[in-house]
Amino acid sequence: MTHNRRFTLVRRPQGTPVAEDFALVSEPLPDLAEGEVLVRNAYASLDPAIRGWLDDAPSYLPPVRLGDPVRATTIGRAVRSRDPAIAEGQWMLGLNAIEEYSVARPGGFTAPVDASAAPSVTNFLSVFGAVGMTAYFGLIEVGRPQAGETVLVSGAAGAVGSLVGQIAKRLGCRTVGIAGGPDKCRRLIEDYGYDAAIDYRGRSVEALAAEIGKAAPDGVDVIFENVGGDILDAGLLHINRFARIALCGLIAEYNSVTGPVGARNLWQLIVKTARIEGLLVSNYIPRFPEGAAAMGKWLAEGGLRVDEHIDEGIENALPAFLRLFEGSNEGKMILKLD
Amino acid sequence: MTHNRRFTLVRRPQGTPVAEDFALVSEPLPDLAEGEVLVRNAYASLDPAIRGWLDDAPSYLPPVRLGDPVRATTIGRAVRSRDPAIAEGQWMLGLNAIEEYSVARPGGFTAPVDASAAPSVTNFLSVFGAVGMTAYFGLIEVGRPQAGETVLVSGAAGAVGSLVGQIAKRLGCRTVGIAGGPDKCRRLIEDYGYDAAIDYRGRSVEALAAEIGKAAPDGVDVIFENVGGDILDAGLLHINRFARIALCGLIAEYNSVTGPVGARNLWQLIVKTARIEGLLVSNYIPRFPEGAAAMGKWLAEGGLRVDEHIDEGIENALPAFLRLFEGSNEGKMILKLD
Repeated sequence: MTHNRRFTLVRRPQGTPVAEDFALVSEPLPDLAEGEVLVRNAYASLDPAIRGWLDDAPSYLPPVRLGDPVRATTIGRAVRSRDPAIAEGQWMLGLNAIEEYSVARPGGFTAPVDASAAPSVTNFLSVFGAVGMTAYFGLIEVGRPQAGETVLVSGAAGAVGSLVGQIAKRLGCRTVGIAGGPDKCRRLIEDYGYDAAIDYRGRSVEALAAEIGKAAPDGVDVIFENVGGDILDAGLLHINRFARIALCGLIAEYNSVTGPVGARNLWQLIVKTARIEGLLVSNYIPRFPEGAAAMGKWLAEGGLRVDEHIDEGIENALPAFLRLFEGSNEGKMILKLD
Repeated sequence: MTHNRRFTLVRRPQGTPVAEDFALVSEPLPDLAEGEVLVRNAYASLDPAIRGWLDDAPSYLPPVRLGDPVRATTIGRAVRSRDPAIAEGQWMLGLNAIEEYSVARPGGFTAPVDASAAPSVTNFLSVFGAVGMTAYFGLIEVGRPQAGETVLVSGAAGAVGSLVGQIAKRLGCRTVGIAGGPDKCRRLIEDYGYDAAIDYRGRSVEALAAEIGKAAPDGVDVIFENVGGDILDAGLLHINRFARIALCGLIAEYNSVTGPVGARNLWQLIVKTARIEGLLVSNYIPRFPEGAAAMGKWLAEGGLRVDEHIDEGIENALPAFLRLFEGSNEGKMILKLD
């Protein structure tokens, strides 16, 4: 324990990130200042949002600087502490980076967690982490579904989407999921309880819209949008009056080199007096205990299936991250670092 | 008074409407059924929304049928009445058509108005009509501006936009208007009290965004969007956190033959947790008295400038309508029919 391997950004990706955009470097462990804690990261959360942080564009967080490790939420144990409130061995969750060790600073984004509260510490990166809170608050506060309404979810087999579908079902909604390929569509129905599943692959906007029309005969009241592009355009064609579209992600265009597509069928918002509203889970941080309690209750009752896809080794950071865009992960994408 | 000249739709326009899409026909006046009223239309309201009604596409109103007169709001006087509550000579306002005579049916969209309540009966097609109510409720209920915030208006010299800017100013907001050409930009400042005016002509999205950045140094909290396309994309680049975009119209794409553009910079909604919400004035019909009272008060106080652009003659219906898309009207576009 003298060196820290870190997955650093050395060049800003153009389109899909490639190996040459990153370096795996080994640096001496830093000395701790008063109040700091050294955390041995056990797991890093790999999320589509990371792609945005690699661009040199204004956003809700500053871009990752060239030479810095790639920002990610991690969970790990304190191995040295100069904070009297944190004992060695304490589990710590925070917005750190893909690296073996992170330094938790007072006032920063790292905080202790009670690992015994969850079946697995990785759950703090999935159902009790940003993913679970995004699904919960995004659906409830932005989507605002009512019992009997129809909720359409894109990226429905993904970490967020699979939870959104299950929460919407619990709230008494009809759930329609969109995913890529027959295996994922089977999982939508069998694992996540969706009422209908639509495979977007090989389908035009018109063909997708026709499928949505069949799966949502009463129209769509809430869209939980993770993907964007053709999928959002098709969904817009079936929204009901006063529909709410919670815009969580636009993964279809994060690696685009031709520029953003956005939403072409925007006129539908006018004729249906509907809205698209962006969603950042960070707006709900003060309410995370409420969200975690709800998810914990449903998990304990056996009414919530949480899938995690764990790849191992910091040297696999890039291929593990790229699974999110290939769609080859089955559940919340996590990288084991220890 | 035996015949009714009507401006009818004979072919659905492809892109910008042309003369061959319409016919001016003369038909015998209909006999009235019990309860019906024959109205001699004095003025018709020409609105961008009419373009949408000419397409064979699902919308909030059924498409105008081929052979039918083009739907429009009109105001005129009862010339024959089989409704005991309506005397001959009574002014009647309603969703009728571009035609010399309309039949007001019980339970339809035509109702008597007290012409003495307004400086001019044409005001019922502008400041006290859909245009004024769209500006009032769209800004207040969808845009929800707070004093001190910045409101960006596109189509700012238009019938709706010119009112939106004046209402926002009254509410204590900084107002930035976008319009086409130096004359309109001068009118934005001199006639409608905008704090800043931006000429969109000849400017790319990037150049427009740079101008918006200069005119709105604290960012944009509310966009009242009448135009769409490049103008909306540029505005999105300067929205503040929790911004509200009231989507009133997309006039830039109503005549598009290449398909809709929509909003390409949709990612801004996520990073700013902002929303785009469609607006139809018909949702606020029960509150029209409130809106009309507010506008009437401001008008009486001399604090509201209302411009109307009145072309004459049903034979000029098409060129008068096309002014809306050329931008050659100065104020609410109205066609005098009597």
